[in-house]
Amino acid sequence: MRQATSILSFDTPGRGFIDITGSIAGWLRQSGIGEGLLTLLCRHTSASLLIQENAAREVRQDLAAWLDRLAPEGNHYAHDDEGPDDMPAHLRAILTGVTLQVPVIGGRMALGTWQAIYLAEHRRAPHHRQIAVHLIGE
Amino acid sequence: MRQATSILSFDTPGRGFIDITGSIAGWLRQSGIGEGLLTLLCRHTSASLLIQENAAREVRQDLAAWLDRLAPEGNHYAHDDEGPDDMPAHLRAILTGVTLQVPVIGGRMALGTWQAIYLAEHRRAPHHRQIAVHLIGE
Amino acid sequence: MRQATSILSFDTPGRGFIDITGSIAGWLRQSGIGEGLLTLLCRHTSASLLIQENAAREVRQDLAAWLDRLAPEGNHYAHDDEGPDDMPAHLRAILTGVTLQVPVIGGRMALGTWQAIYLAEHRRAPHHRQIAVHLIGE
Repeated sequence: MRQATSILSFDTPGRGFIDITGSIAGWLRQSGIGEGLLTLLCRHTSASLLIQENAAREVRQDLAAWLDRLAPEGNHYAHDDEGPDDMPAHLRAILTGVTLQVPVIGGRMALGTWQAIYLAEHRRAPHHRQIAVHLIGE
Repeated sequence: MRQATSILSFDTPGRGFIDITGSIAGWLRQSGIGEGLLTLLCRHTSASLLIQENAAREVRQDLAAWLDRLAPEGNHYAHDDEGPDDMPAHLRAILTGVTLQVPVIGGRMALGTWQAIYLAEHRRAPHHRQIAVHLIGE
Repeated sequence: MRQATSILSFDTPGRGFIDITGSIAGWLRQSGIGEGLLTLLCRHTSASLLIQENAAREVRQDLAAWLDRLAPEGNHYAHDDEGPDDMPAHLRAILTGVTLQVPVIGGRMALGTWQAIYLAEHRRAPHHRQIAVHLIGE
């Protein structure tokens, strides 16, 4: 049994959902671990991680509109010194979450056929984001 | 230290919350691992996993009504080619999440007295759902 | 490779977010494990766990107001025998989640600079809360 860890970096173009499944799969492959548990932690408070539909792009469009509605921008927040998109970004990160775990079976992440891993950027501006990854297995 | 993995299947009767704690506990028991970490991944984008109250059935009833209110059906979604209950199902799956981890201590999942693990089916129709399970420990 | 597990207890003063990062870091330190995976499970259905901003206290204030808005108290719940703040507490716990995982790298939790781990108490009254912790690594 052994472990591998890393801090992976991603540049986001501002608000949106970036499919990082391929990058994670690449890191997993070079680890040489074929059966195990993969854990991801987004090291930020206004970006997050989620597993969702990898096919229809309209799903991401509807998701963005829904997050806008549930946690709208506006002047009703006490925390506003980093701009009007900052506090809603925190709330959207809380709703979606910053940690994910994926079992690794037979050399692959045991995701469903329609699942991809997304880094969700909730700020309007481009950001440099880090994801801590941990893998244990053999 | 060793691992066990499996893909467990569940048939859902359509929208609702299915208590899968007993099935998971059964799988855990036959693994022979008494101290460790259990991970579950729901391999779908319109069903999800959550840990909640195992006693009062009204809690699940209120939860269903709340999800209806936060992510309602309607004709305002761009992604509508799989029916009016599909996009809300994706949103409800994102809100509740598809991965869960439970420490295993003394041969049992370390859940609280009132906690059960539910597979949440968000589509109206019955579905065949898969959960990837991973266990590491000794 | 080895494991450590424990049940940690926290007394909450009623609704609010308690920074438990220091307590968890203390437990991690005395385990002697420097590379691994840390898992937390809140053993309750009306309290939860989240990772969020550790600096501006206004973020927690806005978060509390947002949860009040998304899952308000009121007489519209079927489950009301434990008081008007109980069912909203369940819903807020579902939204934020009860499990968290943090990679441990170089003797420390791989949290971002601005991240802290919070125990979220969603009931109005003070409560005694338990968190199951699991650590695997070396």
